[in-house]
Amino acid sequence: MISRRSFLSGATALVSASAVPRGALGQIPEPTSSTSPVTAPPSSPPNGSPFKPVVTLNGWSLPWRLNDGIKEFHLVAEPVEREIASGMAAHFWGYNGQSPGPTIECVEGDRVRIFVTNKLPEYTTIHWHGVRVPNGMDGVAGLTQPAIRPGETWIYEFDMNHAGTFMYHPHADEMVQMAMGMMGLIIVHPKDPNTLSVDRDFAFLMSAYNIEPGSYTPRVNTHTDFNLWTWNSRVFPGISSLNVRQGDRVRIRIGNLTMTNHPIHLHGHSFEVTGTDGGWVPETARWPEATIDIGVGQVRVIELIADSEGDWAFHCHKTHHTMNAMSHDVLTSIGVNFEEAAKKLRGLIPGYMVMGDKGMAEMASMNMELPENTLPMMSGEGPYGPIGMGGMFTVFKVRAEQSHNDYSDPGWYESPEGTTAYLSKE
Amino acid sequence: MISRRSFLSGATALVSASAVPRGALGQIPEPTSSTSPVTAPPSSPPNGSPFKPVVTLNGWSLPWRLNDGIKEFHLVAEPVEREIASGMAAHFWGYNGQSPGPTIECVEGDRVRIFVTNKLPEYTTIHWHGVRVPNGMDGVAGLTQPAIRPGETWIYEFDMNHAGTFMYHPHADEMVQMAMGMMGLIIVHPKDPNTLSVDRDFAFLMSAYNIEPGSYTPRVNTHTDFNLWTWNSRVFPGISSLNVRQGDRVRIRIGNLTMTNHPIHLHGHSFEVTGTDGGWVPETARWPEATIDIGVGQVRVIELIADSEGDWAFHCHKTHHTMNAMSHDVLTSIGVNFEEAAKKLRGLIPGYMVMGDKGMAEMASMNMELPENTLPMMSGEGPYGPIGMGGMFTVFKVRAEQSHNDYSDPGWYESPEGTTAYLSKE
Amino acid sequence: MISRRSFLSGATALVSASAVPRGALGQIPEPTSSTSPVTAPPSSPPNGSPFKPVVTLNGWSLPWRLNDGIKEFHLVAEPVEREIASGMAAHFWGYNGQSPGPTIECVEGDRVRIFVTNKLPEYTTIHWHGVRVPNGMDGVAGLTQPAIRPGETWIYEFDMNHAGTFMYHPHADEMVQMAMGMMGLIIVHPKDPNTLSVDRDFAFLMSAYNIEPGSYTPRVNTHTDFNLWTWNSRVFPGISSLNVRQGDRVRIRIGNLTMTNHPIHLHGHSFEVTGTDGGWVPETARWPEATIDIGVGQVRVIELIADSEGDWAFHCHKTHHTMNAMSHDVLTSIGVNFEEAAKKLRGLIPGYMVMGDKGMAEMASMNMELPENTLPMMSGEGPYGPIGMGGMFTVFKVRAEQSHNDYSDPGWYESPEGTTAYLSKE
Repeated sequence: MISRRSFLSGATALVSASAVPRGALGQIPEPTSSTSPVTAPPSSPPNGSPFKPVVTLNGWSLPWRLNDGIKEFHLVAEPVEREIASGMAAHFWGYNGQSPGPTIECVEGDRVRIFVTNKLPEYTTIHWHGVRVPNGMDGVAGLTQPAIRPGETWIYEFDMNHAGTFMYHPHADEMVQMAMGMMGLIIVHPKDPNTLSVDRDFAFLMSAYNIEPGSYTPRVNTHTDFNLWTWNSRVFPGISSLNVRQGDRVRIRIGNLTMTNHPIHLHGHSFEVTGTDGGWVPETARWPEATIDIGVGQVRVIELIADSEGDWAFHCHKTHHTMNAMSHDVLTSIGVNFEEAAKKLRGLIPGYMVMGDKGMAEMASMNMELPENTLPMMSGEGPYGPIGMGGMFTVFKVRAEQSHNDYSDPGWYESPEGTTAYLSKE
Repeated sequence: MISRRSFLSGATALVSASAVPRGALGQIPEPTSSTSPVTAPPSSPPNGSPFKPVVTLNGWSLPWRLNDGIKEFHLVAEPVEREIASGMAAHFWGYNGQSPGPTIECVEGDRVRIFVTNKLPEYTTIHWHGVRVPNGMDGVAGLTQPAIRPGETWIYEFDMNHAGTFMYHPHADEMVQMAMGMMGLIIVHPKDPNTLSVDRDFAFLMSAYNIEPGSYTPRVNTHTDFNLWTWNSRVFPGISSLNVRQGDRVRIRIGNLTMTNHPIHLHGHSFEVTGTDGGWVPETARWPEATIDIGVGQVRVIELIADSEGDWAFHCHKTHHTMNAMSHDVLTSIGVNFEEAAKKLRGLIPGYMVMGDKGMAEMASMNMELPENTLPMMSGEGPYGPIGMGGMFTVFKVRAEQSHNDYSDPGWYESPEGTTAYLSKE
Repeated sequence: MISRRSFLSGATALVSASAVPRGALGQIPEPTSSTSPVTAPPSSPPNGSPFKPVVTLNGWSLPWRLNDGIKEFHLVAEPVEREIASGMAAHFWGYNGQSPGPTIECVEGDRVRIFVTNKLPEYTTIHWHGVRVPNGMDGVAGLTQPAIRPGETWIYEFDMNHAGTFMYHPHADEMVQMAMGMMGLIIVHPKDPNTLSVDRDFAFLMSAYNIEPGSYTPRVNTHTDFNLWTWNSRVFPGISSLNVRQGDRVRIRIGNLTMTNHPIHLHGHSFEVTGTDGGWVPETARWPEATIDIGVGQVRVIELIADSEGDWAFHCHKTHHTMNAMSHDVLTSIGVNFEEAAKKLRGLIPGYMVMGDKGMAEMASMNMELPENTLPMMSGEGPYGPIGMGGMFTVFKVRAEQSHNDYSDPGWYESPEGTTAYLSKE
């Protein structure tokens, strides 16, 4: 039914993604895996055209093997365990040990060959969202290729003709597989490293999960009522801070693979959208923004000059997206007599604390008895006391130049535990 | 209370929409009706200024009568039955036999007179969303006119001063009437047919319904939890494919009359928004996009060069909007022991199949026992197996020029059954 | 832990918001308070640089005291009662007697000192959304300052360096405090009053509440299922109309502090977005719009020429956002036999009226027996009968010049009761 010619001949036209013939399995590059939630320090490319690597928040970039001028990557779709933040782990499906999968970085003009091994219990495919590939490489099960069955390894091969920020995710049983965490970023750097150049380049994906307090596996048929709103499958205070020098030109690449819009707000600065999953936005078309609403399936690349020193909140502006799971189950008792409410609430939710007749500020510092594997609703300790946040929140840290380390020092990007380094005052 | 002078004199200032006097009923043009869900082939205008007609997906355009230089249309608001896709029909309210109503096409500068007959059991009006009409023609019940009572015929008359893409819908009991399917498109073509000219011109409205499995009539007070996400009141595989020649400049006009944003994603191409319900977007202001988030009550006109041959998925990127109704009722059992789960699930949902301990991919090909008049959650058979989609999904088919028929051939637009022609490989 | 030096010295760099020392309390300006829901007539600034004041719909602007060239404002966070529309009051938290709080107006280049007294039962802060303040003034509890405890008065001091439209709200227990109504607008006028000048300048915030029929206090943990969609904590017909002269250049500044997008639609006109919370949109980047989708935490400033006379609907296009609370509880009975349905519905909802076998139009005029402190779902009487709306709906009234009063006449802006003046025909 499908042509396997592409694997053997590298034919460029009218090819389909194809299964690796059994005899050719030995040619596949060994997959690289990572289970660490710590942001990997960016490293320069060992071969091919030079580029300035991105920093994937709480993630890493996938190494490639250069084979006859083609960059060969190997993605393995498989069950993974992800630490959402200290105190909670989730059972996801992801790639190469982690959800989201590793970032694929390459250069405009590169030809890539991506091997995809399916170690899931059901079939899958990969769609390269935003990359203009030949139709047979588009990864839509049934429409452009048969689904990749469990145990099979498939090959996608195409040219990266446009610099930009793209995403990869399954296009087979896709509601389920994305609800389980299957997604990753693709960064295609400009051929000329001086084009569109910035001093700092960060990237992350937004995803949402519905994991009942006390359990580990997301419910896969949730449509809107998620309880974990994440950046790269992490929540505050488990999300790395974005550390820059004062005066830096900063790029932040954000993709949304949840089920709703996320209005991303940066404090203390005005920024512009300079790119989308469709290309780069001309200067004449750019708007100054303090809050950019990112639709589902969209990429928004924002850029700014980090001209104001300090610790700046950077978060989704939907307030329940900066809370963790428990906010669903809390009843309002503002204005209700505390003693009366206490009796009633204990009847409804045995073992839970009563709170909230004066608001919920006290929650940020109290130690509630939580179910196993459950994060507190409001969390994070800052230099001036509890921050009282969760979910899609981190800190954009701007420091004067002389107080900082070299760009290549991972300590610059990351506290040792992979969390927002809001406590360090450098 | 209201002036009927406009009907008799055609006065252009300070007029209100008005009821047709009983004695004048004979002057009203006979209404045209269609109940077919097949995309009607576009036909050139029989009189008036020339224009290149749009292709309304799974719809048709309303003929007019030229009367003293005025284009007279006749809309009949009435209960209709619509095939949502093969295997399911809905009891809607619509216009002239169908929901959505027929597309109204005219030319910039045209004066139109639109007769509206109310055959519904309650009152209604029509608001011409985006068209800059005199206040008395704006169709807001109570504010700019009395509501049109059942049995009455009203007349709206105004000039179409601006080319663009607009919508019509009631502005009376409007949450109910739009939840029941009352809406249609208005295309005002430029006076000069060479202005803003394209090779292919498609149009559709997005609407959402909440029809319980096994029933026919939408629930009209649903706010967000709809279960049928439609394009022109059709779901995949019941939505026509968009068929174009390679190299064509293609315009797709999309209006959103649901209750939430729809991020529309086209595979394999980058596109721009060139128009809205407010006018045409200047070239300096356009963004390249792969996914455009369309807000409620907005029109987004997108344009692109179809430079890549193949069958390209074209869909809303909220994954539950490409599923049909049953996805609400499926419990997650990934990682749960199948035999244990089977017993429990059968207890909860007698007669339903157990699924999903390994994901839900298998659903795309299984034959579940479904309630009467209910579509499977995942559907569609492609050249490489089950596609496993529903809802707001269709295929953008790009073929090399020589393999295709003439623009005016309806076979070009449509399989005989009015469905996505993904099986034909031409 | 924090420096109080700023209060005494006015130091401009690296300062934090700080508590007022007990001995200095006498220096604080007396707070001004208002509990009226009527739109206050705009008044010219008594000192400082001249500017043309905004009209805050159903709100007012906070007076200041000029102290050594610094404009001193005093905000008091406190429980308030707000009339939502005639027939319903809510128990909110707000500022200076009202929710939303008063608008803060000043001029580009102004230095402001804002005293914040906390009379709430829990701690709070104020974040100046979009204003580029020094980090210590950013108002994020725990991160940039300790929270302001009940009974304390704090001081924020910074320069207003950019003209624009911004918002203030707590950044401490923020989901709760915003769900309770704590928010306000900040307008920074250009230094040169001829820059960006318009004839009419309106402003309002969008907020959403979940108040059960028959009760007064919002539920504070609602994520999406709100039942009161408000503009400046008012619903139709309790929202002032926007009254302008034909030919006026009109600016409307809209901020969204709800939990979802609001697509704002203006009838009869095309408009452009000219500003955001990040700055002013260049002319080359502007789109013509009839409906602008405003994301959460965003400001959108729209401008238009009011060239068409009449009463134009101006509203959110999500139809359930132009309904009031009761729409949740109504069952659909379109197509159901009335007599059968009547019995069933009366059994489910004793004391309620049966409706809707022919749609719900009849609701707009019937007198349902409502719970205490509850608005009808559909409301408003227009010149041509019931309008049948609620929530985020008002009227943009354009009149020919000679028929209108002077710009400074409050009667121009407002009916005596503070409601949409749709009945007056001038």
